Amino acid sequence: MQAKEAAEVEIIRLLKAGKDSYISGQALSAALGVSRTAVWKHIEKAREMGFSIEALPSKGYRLNTSADAPFNGIEVSSGLETGFIGRNICFYPSLDSTNMKAFELGRQGAPEGTAVIADSQTGGKGRLGRRWESPAGANLYTSIILRPGIPPRHAHNLTFLSAVAVAETVERFSPVRPTVKWPNDILLDGKKVAGILMEMDSEPDRVHFVVAGIGVNINIKVTAFPDRLRPMATSLYEKSGKETNRAVFTCVLYSSLEKWYKVYREKGFLPLMEAWKGFFASVGKTVTVRSFDSVIEGVCLGVDDDDGALLVKTRAGAIERVVSGDVEIKRDGL
Amino acid sequence: MQAKEAAEVEIIRLLKAGKDSYISGQALSAALGVSRTAVWKHIEKAREMGFSIEALPSKGYRLNTSADAPFNGIEVSSGLETGFIGRNICFYPSLDSTNMKAFELGRQGAPEGTAVIADSQTGGKGRLGRRWESPAGANLYTSIILRPGIPPRHAHNLTFLSAVAVAETVERFSPVRPTVKWPNDILLDGKKVAGILMEMDSEPDRVHFVVAGIGVNINIKVTAFPDRLRPMATSLYEKSGKETNRAVFTCVLYSSLEKWYKVYREKGFLPLMEAWKGFFASVGKTVTVRSFDSVIEGVCLGVDDDDGALLVKTRAGAIERVVSGDVEIKRDGL
Repeated sequence: MQAKEAAEVEIIRLLKAGKDSYISGQALSAALGVSRTAVWKHIEKAREMGFSIEALPSKGYRLNTSADAPFNGIEVSSGLETGFIGRNICFYPSLDSTNMKAFELGRQGAPEGTAVIADSQTGGKGRLGRRWESPAGANLYTSIILRPGIPPRHAHNLTFLSAVAVAETVERFSPVRPTVKWPNDILLDGKKVAGILMEMDSEPDRVHFVVAGIGVNINIKVTAFPDRLRPMATSLYEKSGKETNRAVFTCVLYSSLEKWYKVYREKGFLPLMEAWKGFFASVGKTVTVRSFDSVIEGVCLGVDDDDGALLVKTRAGAIERVVSGDVEIKRDGL
Repeated sequence: MQAKEAAEVEIIRLLKAGKDSYISGQALSAALGVSRTAVWKHIEKAREMGFSIEALPSKGYRLNTSADAPFNGIEVSSGLETGFIGRNICFYPSLDSTNMKAFELGRQGAPEGTAVIADSQTGGKGRLGRRWESPAGANLYTSIILRPGIPPRHAHNLTFLSAVAVAETVERFSPVRPTVKWPNDILLDGKKVAGILMEMDSEPDRVHFVVAGIGVNINIKVTAFPDRLRPMATSLYEKSGKETNRAVFTCVLYSSLEKWYKVYREKGFLPLMEAWKGFFASVGKTVTVRSFDSVIEGVCLGVDDDDGALLVKTRAGAIERVVSGDVEIKRDGL
């Protein structure tokens, strides 16, 4: 969270840890190292931010966990278990695009792990210059700043890293196992539940920072999608039939990202690729790959372990390595 | 120039074309398609911008070319002969960094060829996070936005392209032939006269835009450099003993950049590499290359024609390909 809300985050974290029991104002005051009046002001602020906090003069404060929790930076921060991803959260009710904002913050020197979250986006961006539908109150739109200290030619590694983290997180909340569509769309039963847009700021020989932009359709109903997207899009809600707490989802996602980022830094790309392939279901399928200047049709043979390039065998028998493009999977969907 | 100064640019261009002869207010009015009162207002504006314009009621207006021309966007624009590079010039008396500003403009969608110029920089940036000395009134600090539509792994091509354009331009104004130090420092007698900082905004598989930041020591005296730089830095003035018109230099540079950019788009990287090698004088020299995590010492064998990687033969006999790093040339300097 932003530093100015640090006390509110700590109070909510303590109240959550106390489950449904009351915590005295004195205990909170001692834990935070501030006066009881200050505690009271922070409680008021947290209430304004949407938290249902009960107070009894003789007992203290209690978080009413049966009430709907708000979705904001305090709620996410108070549930975080990461070391650096999301330790600096910038939450906005609405943004043009979380990637735009994260990029700005990155240019200004924001630390690694800084996360931007918006409840809605007016100009949400997808891959290849496409729009990402971003209505309020339902989904997750977040962008995380990473500073991996790698050359740009390795930046694609982080595409696969993000896909693994998102797929793994979706798997935790979905009754259906997700699959990945090369390189980093996440599908449930062949329909898109999440997308990733990686952008980076670099010199030709070193990356200054990468922004991993992640959009996940969580509680949106398919009927709320524009007509053209309905046949291709789905959400966790559509598959599970119930609402998922967005803050909880976000915390699990950030933990997963951090875990795989550490694996990548310590052991390189190969373990990521192995995990990614566990979600990849296109081998043997007929695919059409459209890139800037070509269309390749053929059978998907798999991916190159070194760099994740898609391997496609054309009808003429040639094996094409695809490093960029948009994949369409023919027949049986995913 | 910015559109709001289009009329001033056109007037200065016409007055320059007229050499030392007078051009009537009526002729200017007709050429610009505005009233004579408007012409007079634009003349006043141009005078405020530092142009010495004489007026005679019976004859019209004349540019006093023996007076010092100002260095600003109008002066550069009125001398441009390019199709797109510099057609949109954003000139500032002072900026933190022209690369920062150009990057911002690029993110906002500024067209290809947009050029930022500052008379001074408070936070001028060099390669590898270094500072670039940027006092006012003497040098050129410019950053150009390019949108080549290439994948990031090819962005280094533009490093070499910029080096060729800068070296070729310096050659026009210097009595000494410049050399390049891999990949893109420009030297005169072994001392740095110009440096280039390439930055880019991209997805892992496509570059949104590249900013080519170019700093050239033009009229600065070496005594004005900080002590630590004096042994390594020089300027056109130090070599030629006379002042170079910065606007003229800028126009030649933009023309050269545009020429090589067209060559690159039409014929690929090889002709650039050939031109670059014409300025490269390190073959056979002993070099030390420092990169993130290694130091390589050996004899420079040349560069790889495919990607410009530096080829160094170590004492152990291995041939190392260097794609990133800082080169120091031992003995006989350049």
